[in-house]
Amino acid sequence: MTNTQLTLIQIDNYGPWTVTPEPRREMDLQTLQSRLFADLAQFVGSRDGYVFFTRFDNMVAVTNGLDRTDHELMQESIRNRYPVTLSLGVGVDEVPVEALERATEEIQLAGSAQDGDRREVLGGEFYTGSATGDLNIAHFDVNDATGKYTDRLNEFDSFIHIEQGYASLMRHMREAHGALSFFVGGDNIISVCPSLTESEYRSAIEHVESEVGVELKVGVGTGESAHVAGFAAKHALEDCRHRGTDVEFEAAPAQVSDD
Amino acid sequence: MTNTQLTLIQIDNYGPWTVTPEPRREMDLQTLQSRLFADLAQFVGSRDGYVFFTRFDNMVAVTNGLDRTDHELMQESIRNRYPVTLSLGVGVDEVPVEALERATEEIQLAGSAQDGDRREVLGGEFYTGSATGDLNIAHFDVNDATGKYTDRLNEFDSFIHIEQGYASLMRHMREAHGALSFFVGGDNIISVCPSLTESEYRSAIEHVESEVGVELKVGVGTGESAHVAGFAAKHALEDCRHRGTDVEFEAAPAQVSDD
Amino acid sequence: MTNTQLTLIQIDNYGPWTVTPEPRREMDLQTLQSRLFADLAQFVGSRDGYVFFTRFDNMVAVTNGLDRTDHELMQESIRNRYPVTLSLGVGVDEVPVEALERATEEIQLAGSAQDGDRREVLGGEFYTGSATGDLNIAHFDVNDATGKYTDRLNEFDSFIHIEQGYASLMRHMREAHGALSFFVGGDNIISVCPSLTESEYRSAIEHVESEVGVELKVGVGTGESAHVAGFAAKHALEDCRHRGTDVEFEAAPAQVSDD
Amino acid sequence: MTNTQLTLIQIDNYGPWTVTPEPRREMDLQTLQSRLFADLAQFVGSRDGYVFFTRFDNMVAVTNGLDRTDHELMQESIRNRYPVTLSLGVGVDEVPVEALERATEEIQLAGSAQDGDRREVLGGEFYTGSATGDLNIAHFDVNDATGKYTDRLNEFDSFIHIEQGYASLMRHMREAHGALSFFVGGDNIISVCPSLTESEYRSAIEHVESEVGVELKVGVGTGESAHVAGFAAKHALEDCRHRGTDVEFEAAPAQVSDD
Repeated sequence: MTNTQLTLIQIDNYGPWTVTPEPRREMDLQTLQSRLFADLAQFVGSRDGYVFFTRFDNMVAVTNGLDRTDHELMQESIRNRYPVTLSLGVGVDEVPVEALERATEEIQLAGSAQDGDRREVLGGEFYTGSATGDLNIAHFDVNDATGKYTDRLNEFDSFIHIEQGYASLMRHMREAHGALSFFVGGDNIISVCPSLTESEYRSAIEHVESEVGVELKVGVGTGESAHVAGFAAKHALEDCRHRGTDVEFEAAPAQVSDD
Repeated sequence: MTNTQLTLIQIDNYGPWTVTPEPRREMDLQTLQSRLFADLAQFVGSRDGYVFFTRFDNMVAVTNGLDRTDHELMQESIRNRYPVTLSLGVGVDEVPVEALERATEEIQLAGSAQDGDRREVLGGEFYTGSATGDLNIAHFDVNDATGKYTDRLNEFDSFIHIEQGYASLMRHMREAHGALSFFVGGDNIISVCPSLTESEYRSAIEHVESEVGVELKVGVGTGESAHVAGFAAKHALEDCRHRGTDVEFEAAPAQVSDD
Repeated sequence: MTNTQLTLIQIDNYGPWTVTPEPRREMDLQTLQSRLFADLAQFVGSRDGYVFFTRFDNMVAVTNGLDRTDHELMQESIRNRYPVTLSLGVGVDEVPVEALERATEEIQLAGSAQDGDRREVLGGEFYTGSATGDLNIAHFDVNDATGKYTDRLNEFDSFIHIEQGYASLMRHMREAHGALSFFVGGDNIISVCPSLTESEYRSAIEHVESEVGVELKVGVGTGESAHVAGFAAKHALEDCRHRGTDVEFEAAPAQVSDD
Repeated sequence: MTNTQLTLIQIDNYGPWTVTPEPRREMDLQTLQSRLFADLAQFVGSRDGYVFFTRFDNMVAVTNGLDRTDHELMQESIRNRYPVTLSLGVGVDEVPVEALERATEEIQLAGSAQDGDRREVLGGEFYTGSATGDLNIAHFDVNDATGKYTDRLNEFDSFIHIEQGYASLMRHMREAHGALSFFVGGDNIISVCPSLTESEYRSAIEHVESEVGVELKVGVGTGESAHVAGFAAKHALEDCRHRGTDVEFEAAPAQVSDD
């Protein structure tokens, strides 16, 4: 049974801020958003969590191992260095989308994303356990993306194929399993999943291939933190490459006893 | 008639680098990719161009106003500060996807994205003109995204709606007009377009609404640079908000004579 | 009795790298150095340590609370994102300069700073205790720097005064007490000290005033980490401002029992 | 005859901001200061200028080639991305410290560095010429710093020697010639000078050796921009290394006619 702790990271009042008193230079907004994400990736990543840029004004993080004090420090450090502040909602559940539902509600109950008065919400449930089976991370990539797309089509047509593959996978995984999938660059998609069988991963791959014609393979890892599970998934994906297979599992090295 | 100069920015040999000698921590890759994009956004943006993160290992930039020397400096500065290098291909055309086709070919002809020997390609055509009508930038956003999605659904379901809207718009704009569309965060999509009529923008909006049920509005601007055209588009989008309309045009303030 | 754990952070083979194959643009080197320091400030700072930029290719960090695994992660993250690597030496002692002596030797014994083969040294002693009295941080600033210098002289002459004050204080504190002092911007100097009396701090202030004519005041804090001690020092410095005094002590809030 | 355009970059109201409503985490301030400097180094550096971190809340830049519009953009970009704003004063003179005197006055006349109402001053004189002889940049470094200090002493004692050398050189160059000298990391000091003879550079080196016992060598370059002059100085310094000399001059490659 998985125990996924997810944190929703939402920039307070961002929409209004970007156009007040006047619209701001787009490249400055892109720079701000990207560097904010990068700082959160380092903060959470150095504690073995994952952050996904998602919509940049709203980001989803897998924060098993980060407690309330860590979340307070995250808010404080951003407050000290950026012209915006963050609200954080935290939820825990066996099914990732349910954990995110709770995390999101923590913030929504406190006020709108565009509420001029709502600042630095911090609330929710923090998971205090730590077991190898807590997290399942699946790392998908597109078969021979370089040969089929990057070296042959113009970049936008390559990009359209990758995006269609992502859009198809994200919907299927959420609807069928409550799993959350995020494009992370190149031809890579990382999904935060409940416990799924090899057959269920194969079905997801077949669904995407039949719906949009994009061929995926996947490496799956488990662990007590996003980094441990995700790193195992990366190695499993390398196994797919070496063995020519579509689905590979790799358990994290034994570090804590299973529950 | 538009004259769109596009630059394809491709990290050399990135796929292999990320797993050699072993896979690297995912959050470090996310940080590297995001900060590289942010640096390019600042470099190009301060010269009035635009960069879109696209797939992060491949990025598309609107570079009217940046010449060969600027592109060489971009490569040199990244070489001096990052563990990776960039290849740049440049193309010019009235139709954005055609310009990108040429830009992409410049790099593809020199070698594969995963060619261990191909480093720092720089080639293509640089546009030397400068006229208000050179670029058309369309800035789309989702009607009342905060009220309909962000404040009501869990963040992933909000995100799915935005992604579906983006996937639909990107395909339609590319197939119907050779326009290139990029999600830039929140509920915003920026498109680089040839000259299109109000009716063609309305058709795009209707297409997305009927295909995936997401309602968009759009501000359109023209200018001799991406920043000038894009800033005019932002103001046009504000007009949509204030007037309750779906499509608004705003010409850039007269700075150079039209051709 | 203090127990100061210091880490010397040295970029491997930096001198040769900056001129190979040719000298590199100076502003790119400045950017690289500053952002590397900023990343280390965040990594160490979020674990309640302090880093001082010192010479940028060699940086001194107060790392009570950071263990070997933390230091390994620091090296790994930099290796994944920068074109250079770091060697780290760690030492512990009651007297800060002695701790730094040991930290420096760990690296020197492994090879020269310009040894083309020496990469990513990691060695030394890690302090495992945690007591309020472990660290003494003194935060000095110049009396009325804004009124006397910044608002009256040209910036370089203001800067010369601050630098002379720093050079005088750094030598005195090191020779008299084995304390290490670092300029941290503005008119601020932070010193890592053994246990010193109010009288010894007054002597330091008098020494600087008589030697170079720069008037300092100081707030002193103690704590089990650099952040706890340093934050107490900042508050003590505010006491100096409000009370018009030259030396103030402020103990850290009781968080752990004294040894 | 040199024509040095210097810009003083001052963060508005920084001292009060760092302690309002309460003191801020020191490592967050260090991160903010360093990254702000790095962004300015990239902005100015990509236009062939130089920025020196100086005191971080006050920075000195050599901005030959940057006009008023460039300075406005610098302010705007920082305003869009940081929690602080910048005031900029610009001055031009044959003697660097005189140029800085004028630049500083531009800001001082508008209000105190800690004036809660003074924001984003921009004033002064912009140099519109461009000649190879406009700037003289001298790049000093310490003879065999690695062998004498870095590989032998603890890092702080190495640092004390470098600092003493810097303090001595900065005072002598300013008092004798109105030149401005900045420590840029490692064992390197860059000076912005009026036209000086080889004999005057030798005197500066002898002065430092006799006053503090630190041996320097220097490469001197001229050019129409800081980058061109400074890069020539770096090459001249390499000549010192290869020839075993103390003072070397290298003219910039002929790019513009001398005046």
